[in-house]
Amino acid sequence: MWRHSELLRVLRARGDLWDVAPGVTGLRGETARLFAALERRIGELCLGETIDEWRVPPAIDFATLARADYFASLPQWLTLASHLSGREGVLLRVAEHPEPALAVRDAATPPIVALNPAVCYHVYAGLAGQILHAPRLVTAQAGCWRHEGARHGTLERGWAFTMREVVFVGNETDARAFLRCAAEQATQLAGGLGLDSAIAPATDPFFAPTARAKQLVQRLKELKHELLLPIGDGRTTAAASFNLHDTFFGEAFRIRLPDGRPATTACMAFGLERWTLAFLAAHGPDAARWPAFPALGELAEVSDV
Amino acid sequence: MWRHSELLRVLRARGDLWDVAPGVTGLRGETARLFAALERRIGELCLGETIDEWRVPPAIDFATLARADYFASLPQWLTLASHLSGREGVLLRVAEHPEPALAVRDAATPPIVALNPAVCYHVYAGLAGQILHAPRLVTAQAGCWRHEGARHGTLERGWAFTMREVVFVGNETDARAFLRCAAEQATQLAGGLGLDSAIAPATDPFFAPTARAKQLVQRLKELKHELLLPIGDGRTTAAASFNLHDTFFGEAFRIRLPDGRPATTACMAFGLERWTLAFLAAHGPDAARWPAFPALGELAEVSDV
Repeated sequence: MWRHSELLRVLRARGDLWDVAPGVTGLRGETARLFAALERRIGELCLGETIDEWRVPPAIDFATLARADYFASLPQWLTLASHLSGREGVLLRVAEHPEPALAVRDAATPPIVALNPAVCYHVYAGLAGQILHAPRLVTAQAGCWRHEGARHGTLERGWAFTMREVVFVGNETDARAFLRCAAEQATQLAGGLGLDSAIAPATDPFFAPTARAKQLVQRLKELKHELLLPIGDGRTTAAASFNLHDTFFGEAFRIRLPDGRPATTACMAFGLERWTLAFLAAHGPDAARWPAFPALGELAEVSDV
Repeated sequence: MWRHSELLRVLRARGDLWDVAPGVTGLRGETARLFAALERRIGELCLGETIDEWRVPPAIDFATLARADYFASLPQWLTLASHLSGREGVLLRVAEHPEPALAVRDAATPPIVALNPAVCYHVYAGLAGQILHAPRLVTAQAGCWRHEGARHGTLERGWAFTMREVVFVGNETDARAFLRCAAEQATQLAGGLGLDSAIAPATDPFFAPTARAKQLVQRLKELKHELLLPIGDGRTTAAASFNLHDTFFGEAFRIRLPDGRPATTACMAFGLERWTLAFLAAHGPDAARWPAFPALGELAEVSDV
């Protein structure tokens, strides 16, 4: 197992990663190839669950977030997108300002969308109002944004990061079976990549001061588990999570079973940068020493052409 | 060729596309599968050019944009990302507000990054200060954001959209050869998909009032071409562009040739949503009537499993 700081030092020194802001990271070279291989491998695993793959938008409307109680439960993570004013005078000030980075901050209009904090809200919104005659499994990958104050760490805890989710919508029995199977698949994936893993209970960091958040904590307790992977220095990262939401989203988005009861929802989510980090921590930054795995092998063939 | 409005009506009616804001679109069903197939096909074409694939960050710092003269030349397109204040009182107001969508607008801190307006600025920044002993070819795909006021159209002109670029950095002769080859490859790609295409000269819509923009227009004229694809109703969309930047970015980012002169840069950019729209306009929304192409065939096999 590599020391965390040493690993990042080596990757930065050879230009394989760089940050444009805390927690907003780019990848090049072997590290970019590894990320692409893991992205493909995890995508295949999730498509094996279902071929209903959506391409969700990169942002989400405030109405959907409000319906999901996001503002009350996790406001601290939100990142908003604002375009500039279309007024010529405002743009001219930006264009001609000696320090445009300062001027541009005053030129933005009030934000009208949030960048995705997760993928699954799009799925609940997409199924809103429906009566499900069969369980639904949807997969999607998207860039997500969660601001975590001063806690950002390169690859480990991104302000921007990449999430692949599988979302289940149906009855409670099937939801629990889905999550058992999901945790087993993620554990097998880790083993196949030569990574030690452990499944542990977890809770979302709901915004504590509100009564609403306390209700949510109470209601959702013991419904979240995480797959932990070592990243060196005795630390682990939550590289996947397995979440049972009871009928919370089924009620909020009026997704119902044929008997009229609200649907139960569950999801499995992978954080792709964290899998990349855990792989590098276990196997080191030198690609020649990496164990082969199917998606990596395919990419290697391409590079030989 | 399908009528544009009729095509979108059919796709919306069967749930294949939806907008969360003007120009911010999600895809499902056959349309999502088509997008994925085109994404893969275009990615293969670009990886054929080069295996130096970067995974650029989803946002870009203001210093890089200033260095690229972006604030002076195209400020009207900018979209900024802001996280919320970390102060508990501010978050509490959002969490408990009866209309959180209103409260959240006042809770955002000044933006510190812009969402990518294009992919290639990351490449110039990544090569800044280097002396190139051989030409560089880099490819990357990323979500991009350009706000175009009231001009947004679903798939045709997104506020958010997906760009795949190949960036060339080297000498002028090789840059021109790269662009000739790029335009030929894009034309062949269109033909292979059963799409009529035409290459036409174009100019970027530089922010007109500034003297700086006028200089840019003068300097960069006749250096941009676009591949136009029909989208019905007698209209076309610029589905790819081929751009020669002379030594503009070589100078700005101090990327030099071995003899000390600034490098010439050029890029080819594909707009994936526009290729999807042009394909649908030509072949209709019914997947059973689509012509096969390699990446689509591969996906079809997956769906048969």
